[in-house]
Amino acid sequence: MNEPIGKICWAIAEGYIPAYSNGPEPQFTSHETVCILNANDRDARIEMTIFYTDRDPVGPYRLLVPARRTSHIRFNDLQDPEPIPLDTDFASVIHSDVPIVVQHTRLDSRQSENALLSTIAYASH
Amino acid sequence: MNEPIGKICWAIAEGYIPAYSNGPEPQFTSHETVCILNANDRDARIEMTIFYTDRDPVGPYRLLVPARRTSHIRFNDLQDPEPIPLDTDFASVIHSDVPIVVQHTRLDSRQSENALLSTIAYASH
Amino acid sequence: MNEPIGKICWAIAEGYIPAYSNGPEPQFTSHETVCILNANDRDARIEMTIFYTDRDPVGPYRLLVPARRTSHIRFNDLQDPEPIPLDTDFASVIHSDVPIVVQHTRLDSRQSENALLSTIAYASH
Amino acid sequence: MNEPIGKICWAIAEGYIPAYSNGPEPQFTSHETVCILNANDRDARIEMTIFYTDRDPVGPYRLLVPARRTSHIRFNDLQDPEPIPLDTDFASVIHSDVPIVVQHTRLDSRQSENALLSTIAYASH
Repeated sequence: MNEPIGKICWAIAEGYIPAYSNGPEPQFTSHETVCILNANDRDARIEMTIFYTDRDPVGPYRLLVPARRTSHIRFNDLQDPEPIPLDTDFASVIHSDVPIVVQHTRLDSRQSENALLSTIAYASH
Repeated sequence: MNEPIGKICWAIAEGYIPAYSNGPEPQFTSHETVCILNANDRDARIEMTIFYTDRDPVGPYRLLVPARRTSHIRFNDLQDPEPIPLDTDFASVIHSDVPIVVQHTRLDSRQSENALLSTIAYASH
Repeated sequence: MNEPIGKICWAIAEGYIPAYSNGPEPQFTSHETVCILNANDRDARIEMTIFYTDRDPVGPYRLLVPARRTSHIRFNDLQDPEPIPLDTDFASVIHSDVPIVVQHTRLDSRQSENALLSTIAYASH
Repeated sequence: MNEPIGKICWAIAEGYIPAYSNGPEPQFTSHETVCILNANDRDARIEMTIFYTDRDPVGPYRLLVPARRTSHIRFNDLQDPEPIPLDTDFASVIHSDVPIVVQHTRLDSRQSENALLSTIAYASH
C-alpha cells in the first residue's frame, strides 16, 4: 500500500435526492451518497462542486477524509455553502489533494421497498 | 476546474425503455436517462446515435448542454429524428465537441415497487 | 463514427442466473444479460468463455454481432457448447475481432418485485 | 487468453453489510460480495485490507483464487483476522500477485423485496 491508489479528480454525472422516504430512519431515509476511500498515509483535503441544470455551480463544499480512512458522505447532509435541494437533478466534481477512490450510491425508499444503485465515479486525472 | 474533465466520445451498450409504469408521474414513469455533465466553460454541442438489434442506427439526436451545467435527458423524451420505441433493446453513442462525463440510469416502475440501475458509460476517447 | 469505439477484450467478474422467477415471461424472467455494441462498419465475431468456481472454463461460445448493431444476449439462452447452470456463480471473458463495448445487466424477479443491476464490464485491451 | 486480463490492485470505496435479512437463506441473506476473476494460468494470491471510518485499517485478509477460476466472496464470511461488523461503513483494497478482475455486488434483503447493486471496482494498477 505504499503506491498511491486513486485519482485526484472525479466526476459523478448523476445526482438526485428523492423528496421523501419510507422506513425507519436513518438507515432507510432516501439518500444519495458519495463514498470516498483515502488509502494514503496523508489526510485528503477535498473540494466538491455541485452542478445544476439551470443555475451556476455551487461550491466548494470542503471535506476532510483522514489518512487510511473511508468516508461515506450523504449529499443530504451537506450544509455549507448551502444544502442541496431535494427532487432536483445535479452532478458533482470532486477534487482532492491526494489520490482517492470515489463511488456513488443511492438508496431510494420512496416506495415501500427500497431501490439501490451504485456506480464507480468517473476518474478524470 | 481549469483542466477539462471528461471525454468527447462515450458509449452505452445497454438501453431499454419499459413499456409501462406504476406510480405518480413524472417521477415514477419508467424511464431511461443519460446524465451528462459539462464542467467546461464552453457549451457542449452533443450528437447521439441510437443503435438497434435489427435495423440501421438512427441519428444524430442533437443536444446542447450549456457551460457549467448538467443535463439529465430521458431517452423517452427524444423526438427528432424519431422517438425511441418502447420495450426495444438499443444502445447509444454520444459525441461532444468538448469533454463531458456521461452516466446511465434506469427507473423501472413496471411492478409496484421501483427498480433502479445506474452505471458509468464507456469513455472511449 | 469513423474512429473505432471500444476494446477487443472484456471481462465480467460477476455472473449468476437466479433459479426461478416471478411475473409474465419473457420480460420478467430472471435473467443475466451481456449487452454488446458493435459501432463499427464490420461484423464482430465474438468468443465468450465462462469461468466457474470449481471446474475448468467452458467455451468458446460463438456470437456474431453485425456491423452497426447492438445485441443484448441472455446468458440463459446460451446452448453451445453447453447451457450455463442456474443458481451457480460464474464469470465471463469476451474476445472480439473488432472493438466493441460490453455492459452487464441482471433482472432478478425471484421475489414479487424486481431487482436490477447493471455495470460496465472491465475493458482489458 | 494468453495475454493477462486485469490489474493487480483494485479498490472498492463502498462497503456495507446490512444488519438483517428477509427471505430463505443463504440466497436471500443480505450480503456484500467481491467477485474475483482469475483468468490466468497461475493461482492468484490475494490480500484484502478493510478500511473504516473511525479506526485503523484491518488486514490482510488472505484469499486464494485458483488459476482459471472465479471466486465470489461474501464479506460476511471473512473471519481472519476478524469479522467485518454489520451496519458499518467500510471500503476495501485488493492486491493480487497476478492480474485479476474485481466486481462488487450487494443483495439487500432487509425489506420484503430485494435490492441489488453492482459496480466494477476501481482498477488502480
